[in-house]
Parts: sequence; structure tokens; C-alpha cells
Amino acid sequence: MAGKSLGVSLEAARKIIQAGQEKAKEIGVPMNIAVVDAGANLVAFERMEGAWIGSIDIAINKAFTSRAFDIETKALGENSQSGDQFFGIHASNHGRVMIFAGGVPLKQAGEVVGAVGVSGGLGTQDQAVAEAAAGALAR
Amino acid sequence: MAGKSLGVSLEAARKIIQAGQEKAKEIGVPMNIAVVDAGANLVAFERMEGAWIGSIDIAINKAFTSRAFDIETKALGENSQSGDQFFGIHASNHGRVMIFAGGVPLKQAGEVVGAVGVSGGLGTQDQAVAEAAAGALAR
Amino acid sequence: MAGKSLGVSLEAARKIIQAGQEKAKEIGVPMNIAVVDAGANLVAFERMEGAWIGSIDIAINKAFTSRAFDIETKALGENSQSGDQFFGIHASNHGRVMIFAGGVPLKQAGEVVGAVGVSGGLGTQDQAVAEAAAGALAR
Amino acid sequence: MAGKSLGVSLEAARKIIQAGQEKAKEIGVPMNIAVVDAGANLVAFERMEGAWIGSIDIAINKAFTSRAFDIETKALGENSQSGDQFFGIHASNHGRVMIFAGGVPLKQAGEVVGAVGVSGGLGTQDQAVAEAAAGALAR
Repeated sequence: MAGKSLGVSLEAARKIIQAGQEKAKEIGVPMNIAVVDAGANLVAFERMEGAWIGSIDIAINKAFTSRAFDIETKALGENSQSGDQFFGIHASNHGRVMIFAGGVPLKQAGEVVGAVGVSGGLGTQDQAVAEAAAGALAR
Repeated sequence: MAGKSLGVSLEAARKIIQAGQEKAKEIGVPMNIAVVDAGANLVAFERMEGAWIGSIDIAINKAFTSRAFDIETKALGENSQSGDQFFGIHASNHGRVMIFAGGVPLKQAGEVVGAVGVSGGLGTQDQAVAEAAAGALAR
Repeated sequence: MAGKSLGVSLEAARKIIQAGQEKAKEIGVPMNIAVVDAGANLVAFERMEGAWIGSIDIAINKAFTSRAFDIETKALGENSQSGDQFFGIHASNHGRVMIFAGGVPLKQAGEVVGAVGVSGGLGTQDQAVAEAAAGALAR
Repeated sequence: MAGKSLGVSLEAARKIIQAGQEKAKEIGVPMNIAVVDAGANLVAFERMEGAWIGSIDIAINKAFTSRAFDIETKALGENSQSGDQFFGIHASNHGRVMIFAGGVPLKQAGEVVGAVGVSGGLGTQDQAVAEAAAGALAR
């Protein structure tokens, strides 16, 4: 019995990952890129040659986090530092909440339909690749 | 600083997943398919439209298990039933050991260089798709 | 501040592992071998070239289990099959209880002072290597 | 079926640990020392007499972290404080990411082939021992 489709097709996920990989190559940093659907469940993941092993889990969880709270992980992080209102949120959801840049919601007609998570470089690099990847959904 | 390459390129992983998906379409069951490298770390993953959400984790962990023990998960399962020599092995490795069909080692020149894990159908279906996927490495 | 010594010196652990490795070479199966002290905490571990990655965790946990219950894991397994008195014990201790052959207590003057855990082959092979390893403590 | 070799032989791991232990003795602090290969999987571990029990897990995970991100854990820690770009990274990878000094990558020909993790003293002490240990790979 097939389940209900949840917003991001595999074909779309591939396009999103590919767009991210093109940006990653442009800046010269191998990346892990993950896409989740509206249910915050993984649709597709790819690790580029030489990308950090420890970033596999992080990329997948940035995508989860971004859809789980319908927010960029960068923005969530800004509210989750020591002393801020969401400090400690990274201890929730069994270690799946990532609070630094690289997770970006995927939107269609103003609605969040999933998210992309990127990990493998500095925060600014992860963010740039995630934005490039997310941009592919509109195309 | 880039790390050492570990036996299964992203390009190879894509071919393996694609071969698995073709088999999955042939038998009419949407599947989750994961590929790990020689370090048992994830290289690529794809969930076909409608494939079980709970099988995401299982596919990834079947691939892990198959490389972790250099064996098909089906064969491992045959030795892990109550009363058999490896009963209880599924409690090890923090819940990552899968002991039913669908995980198959990837071999090159007689050496295990990674593994593929498939989940989404009956054991025989997962196994058939995993074998078709693994066969693509040789091509 | 140094802690209290707990029964198995590092030097003894090395001898135990070496004796196990000699047996492993004799039977031609690369093994993971771990030694824990009287506190059930790891003293030393070695993975032989080509030994299963998934058996790292198992070897360490067989050693833990064997000291934790002062019993061979093989004997514990015999009481932990479906229908037996300890069935389900492998779900305790956060996945650290192993219930198949390869964990053997280390004894001195009739007292358990630690344990050795071996993983990498069939149950009979793991057991043979663990017994050979444990025998080195007496020498 | 033997698996692919992954960059750090057991013999090399022993030399690395021994070099670390010599440094540890020199500064008078018993240490836990772990070595992982290119797949971030444990090759060897030793706890010196009197070294902290809680540092067993830390040493192993510092080695994991250092290979997982191809970076010294000290440097990672400098970017993972509250307000910094990687704050929260310690929640990823199921509690295996250590963000304080003592984990150092092992390099050969400019490529990361594994890592060493040291825990048992102050950050500066762990770091000094890890550097001495890593230096042995080149010898």
C-alpha cells in the first residue's frame, strides 16, 4: 500500500541536491546534502567525494530541523545561544535539532513543503549551498 | 583538508541506486535504497515516491550492517534467530544492526568496498532489489 | 588524582589480547578483542586487520557483559533465548548486553577481576579465541 | 570475506598509542588513548593505569570527531562555543562529537587517514599527548 505523497517528489529532491552540488563545486567545498519532505522525513541524500563523514548526520538533521520548525537553522540558532529563549532546544528530539546555518525550508506557494540541509564547510558556505539548493524548487 | 576516499564513489552509488529502482519498478514496489562505503558511512540514499517512512532508517541500517559484517543481512538473519549463534546481535551497535533480507555487500576484486541496503517491501522483494542494485557496481 | 586500580593492569590486558590474536591467526580469522577490568570498564582494545567493523562494539560489549554478570556470554545466551528465564535481557543496559559466545570472565584466585570479549567470526571461533585470551592471565 | 583496508594498520596504531603514552608519562598524567581509521572506526584503545573511567568514551569519541570533520577537536571547539558558527554541533552524531582539545587527525601525504583521541587530563595535557601520538605516524 503506497503512502500519501508529501510535497517533495524524488525528482524535485534530485534537482535540489544537484543545484546545491553545483554551488559547492563553485566554492570548492565538498558537501553532504539532504532533502526532507513535508513530513520531515528523508527523501534523498548525497555525500560528495571527500565531504566530512561527521556531516552526514548533520546535513540530514539540518533538513529535519528546518522543516520541523519551519525556519532556517541559522535563524533558529540565533535564538538558541546561551541566554536566549530557545537555549537547550538542541537537546530535544533525540539529538536531531541542529542550531547552526545550513538548513533551509523548501516553499511552494508560500507553504513549507520540506527542507534542505547542507553540511561540509563553514556556516556561511553551508548556508550559501543550502540557499542555492532550495532555489531549485522554484525553477 | 580532504579525507581519504573510501571505495564507493558518489557516481557508483547513483548507478547502484538506479539499478535498484529499475528492479523496484519492475516488481511494482516503491523502495528506500541506501549505499555505504568501506567505512560503513552513508554515500547516497533515495526514497521512491510512496515508499514506507519507517523503512528509511531500515534501508540505511541494512547497508551499514552488510558492510559492518561483510555479509548479506539475510544470511546474518538466518544465524540470529532464537537458539542460533548470533541471536541478540540486533541489540549491538546502538540499534543499527538489521537481521532480515535486503542488505548486500558491494564487492570489487573479491574485496568488500561498501554495501547497499533496501527496504520497502517483503523480504524477498527487498532482497531482489538489493541484488539488482549491487550488480550494477560490476557494470 | 589517580583512581583505584581495578584488577587488570594494562600490561596484563596486552598479554590477554596478544594470546587471543595468536589463536585468531592460528584459525585464520581476524578478530576484535577487548579487555575490561573489575569495574567492567574498557582497559584495552585491538582490531586485527580486516576484522568486521560491526564487531568493534560487540567485542567491547561482550567483555562488559561477561564482567557485568560474572558469566560467559555463551552461558548467558543459553538462558536468554525466546521462552527462557532471561529472555529480553539484551534490551537492558542501553544495548550493551551481548548474549552469544565470545565473552569470558578473567579470574584470579577464584575471583572475577575483569573479562575479555571477542568478535569477528562464528560463535565457536569467538569462544575459542576468548578462552585462549583469558588463559593468558594465569600465565 | 575480508573487507577493504582503511588507512591505519594495527601496527601503526600501536606506535601512535605508545608515543602518546611516553608523553603522558613525561608529564605525569595517565591517559586514555584511541586510534580510528579512515572510516572513523576504532582500531585500538588503551587506558593507562589510573586514567579516568569517564574518559574512555571521550578519548574514543575525540578520535571519531577528529576524523569525522578532518580537524583537531580543539579547533572545532573554538568554533562551537555559544555565539559561534558551530554551536550545537555537539548534539549531532548521537553524542559522539567532542568539542574540546585532545583529538588530532592522522595524515599521510596530506591526506587524513584516521585520527587519535586522548582524554585524561587538562585540555593542554590531552592536546600535548595527542600531538605526540599523531607525530608517530610519520616516523
